[in-house]
Amino acid sequence: MRAEVITVGDELITGLVVDSNSAYLGRRLTELGFRVVRMTSVGDGPEEIRIALQQVSSDVAVVTGGLGPTPDDRTKEVFAEVVGRRLVLDEEVLEGIRKRFAHRGMEMPRSNVRQATVPEGSQVLPNRWGTAPGLHVKADGRHFFLLPGVPREMRGIFEESVVPILRKLSGRAINFVLLRTTGISESALCEKLSDLDLDKVAFLPGLEGVDVRVMWEEGEDPTQLIEEIRRRAGQFVYAEGEEGMEEVVGRLLKRRGWRIATAESCTGGLVGHRITEVPGSSDYFERGVVAYSNRAKVELLGVPEELIRRHGAVSPQVAKAMAEGVRERTGVEVGLGVTGIAGPTGGTPEKPVGLVYIGVATPEEVRVKEFRFVGERSQIKFRASQAALDMVRRAVS
Amino acid sequence: MRAEVITVGDELITGLVVDSNSAYLGRRLTELGFRVVRMTSVGDGPEEIRIALQQVSSDVAVVTGGLGPTPDDRTKEVFAEVVGRRLVLDEEVLEGIRKRFAHRGMEMPRSNVRQATVPEGSQVLPNRWGTAPGLHVKADGRHFFLLPGVPREMRGIFEESVVPILRKLSGRAINFVLLRTTGISESALCEKLSDLDLDKVAFLPGLEGVDVRVMWEEGEDPTQLIEEIRRRAGQFVYAEGEEGMEEVVGRLLKRRGWRIATAESCTGGLVGHRITEVPGSSDYFERGVVAYSNRAKVELLGVPEELIRRHGAVSPQVAKAMAEGVRERTGVEVGLGVTGIAGPTGGTPEKPVGLVYIGVATPEEVRVKEFRFVGERSQIKFRASQAALDMVRRAVS
Repeated sequence: MRAEVITVGDELITGLVVDSNSAYLGRRLTELGFRVVRMTSVGDGPEEIRIALQQVSSDVAVVTGGLGPTPDDRTKEVFAEVVGRRLVLDEEVLEGIRKRFAHRGMEMPRSNVRQATVPEGSQVLPNRWGTAPGLHVKADGRHFFLLPGVPREMRGIFEESVVPILRKLSGRAINFVLLRTTGISESALCEKLSDLDLDKVAFLPGLEGVDVRVMWEEGEDPTQLIEEIRRRAGQFVYAEGEEGMEEVVGRLLKRRGWRIATAESCTGGLVGHRITEVPGSSDYFERGVVAYSNRAKVELLGVPEELIRRHGAVSPQVAKAMAEGVRERTGVEVGLGVTGIAGPTGGTPEKPVGLVYIGVATPEEVRVKEFRFVGERSQIKFRASQAALDMVRRAVS
Repeated sequence: MRAEVITVGDELITGLVVDSNSAYLGRRLTELGFRVVRMTSVGDGPEEIRIALQQVSSDVAVVTGGLGPTPDDRTKEVFAEVVGRRLVLDEEVLEGIRKRFAHRGMEMPRSNVRQATVPEGSQVLPNRWGTAPGLHVKADGRHFFLLPGVPREMRGIFEESVVPILRKLSGRAINFVLLRTTGISESALCEKLSDLDLDKVAFLPGLEGVDVRVMWEEGEDPTQLIEEIRRRAGQFVYAEGEEGMEEVVGRLLKRRGWRIATAESCTGGLVGHRITEVPGSSDYFERGVVAYSNRAKVELLGVPEELIRRHGAVSPQVAKAMAEGVRERTGVEVGLGVTGIAGPTGGTPEKPVGLVYIGVATPEEVRVKEFRFVGERSQIKFRASQAALDMVRRAVS
């Protein structure tokens, strides 16, 4: 079945906001077995909305935005006109909106009454995250879903109310698995898998690494393919599903009952920031030191001045000393040290921008690795943080 | 004049990639004085591309993607068919592609010859960032611009070759100014400005704060309006233009010849990470401490245990002690302390999730402020980092 997405809002077509709703819906519709044929964004003007709605040619159209209480929210009115339905007041919806305001000790502004009108024959999709409900309307043999534009509300209603309807419509149960890899390039990964049937496989490269997505329909059995990919990608696979590297590392540390302390130079605090993005990370993250200056490396981590003088601050020796220093001074099980040249200046022919050394010290061993990252400053910082967390993952698991 | 954007690629409509090209082009076309009426994304299939091209109804259409050397890149072929032009080989383009490969010591693959064909009557727009050139074709009274989908190449060709053509077409010279504010809500800011003529003003709220954009056409004089907004928004304005808070803070520190050291708890290293996103930040960022545990606060910052016991780790007293501690121990001019509850757990009725105390110590004074941020963990962390940098900005300037 064919599907399309229409997003409404002046902020989208004037580029004030990047349209994340379209990408989200495109991905979910694909996963639900629909062929997404197009996405359209139009401004708040009724004429533009009308044309976009009239040009719908798919079995399913998901329309987001323009359901708010202000006069420039016109999606519902234009839609009712295009499909030839009257707008009627839905008492239940009105009561719901009133209650939301009452809950916050406020009276409902009159302008919100408009949000309680629905095209005749609509199925109301409850909005537990805001005031404008979603709507499901069957018209001209097509299924229209009207959803608010606020991403949190849109996603909430979509997952809770739209997905069950779409599953029935699609009749195809599409499943997928995500194998997340890091430390290996897309081409090297492709090469490892080149003799496999990759029809159902997508490679999604990003700053975190390359995600491998395997999709299959009900009745197909991808177990062998997935197993084979997993086997060949080996230690490069850090997660299955949507889990991020920081969550994986947190889970492994918890399982082992180990705590970690970080000593960062070129990443400037990014590793600590990422570790603490995970709720409950205070259970295993004891402290971090951002030793940006050489003096800080000496004072806070006990890196010998002589070592810095002889090998330079960006060296395997200093990465190792940072990892060991922060581990010993803190008394935790895992110490991490990161030192490198994030650029754009500070590089030399021997030590170019992107050169990073990472050390990990555990009760079992100390490992140091050299990396050469490409990209701009913030990309190099992020890639270094990902490699650092990956080394922790390997050392702890 | 009306303009529209068409982006081509299966990766867009299946949501593997968020379409940043559309937002970029929407913003730039608006700034160049065009009324953007719609944006369309379609897959790589020729039928979908054809329909999208046939439905173009604007004076200008910018089409990106599908110009690569592989068989699924079909934009140019479909376009030539839709506007009834033959594809002809452009020797100059071919030579350029050949040279690019030669430069890397490679022979040009045969598949790249296709990239050197252009619809008859095209103006070739050089691509100094990749192989596929951009094309400008006048057909059916409209201007079509075909550009590669790789953002870097698209932006390069757009800025270098398309913008000069669009400026002439538009005839309107649109200017704009961005006033970036933080620490004030959109509604409070609107209220401060409510009696002004806000026709040319857009409020763009985001995690960093509320950006105020003033646009005007040649011949109009917005000086007074901008001055008045600047005056009323006062200290809430942290930047003009695209500059980020971390750059502003870096610039101010440099001007003053002051260095900074950070002591973070709930932000987990994010403040250090943001400071070090700026090239050259090693000139003024001496070190950072992520004192996640109470023990780290005592050991690394000299926060008295008694103070933590009496007031709790999340308290104005501890924020102050962290700022003073890191400043004194490091011997720099500015010390920053951040402590709070990022959630989702750890909150109490007296100290709810989102409560954050920030202290800034300078040679002149020590300031501590209480904040109550809303949102999820990572939003609270980011808002806290923004408020912390803003306090540094105010203390240093």
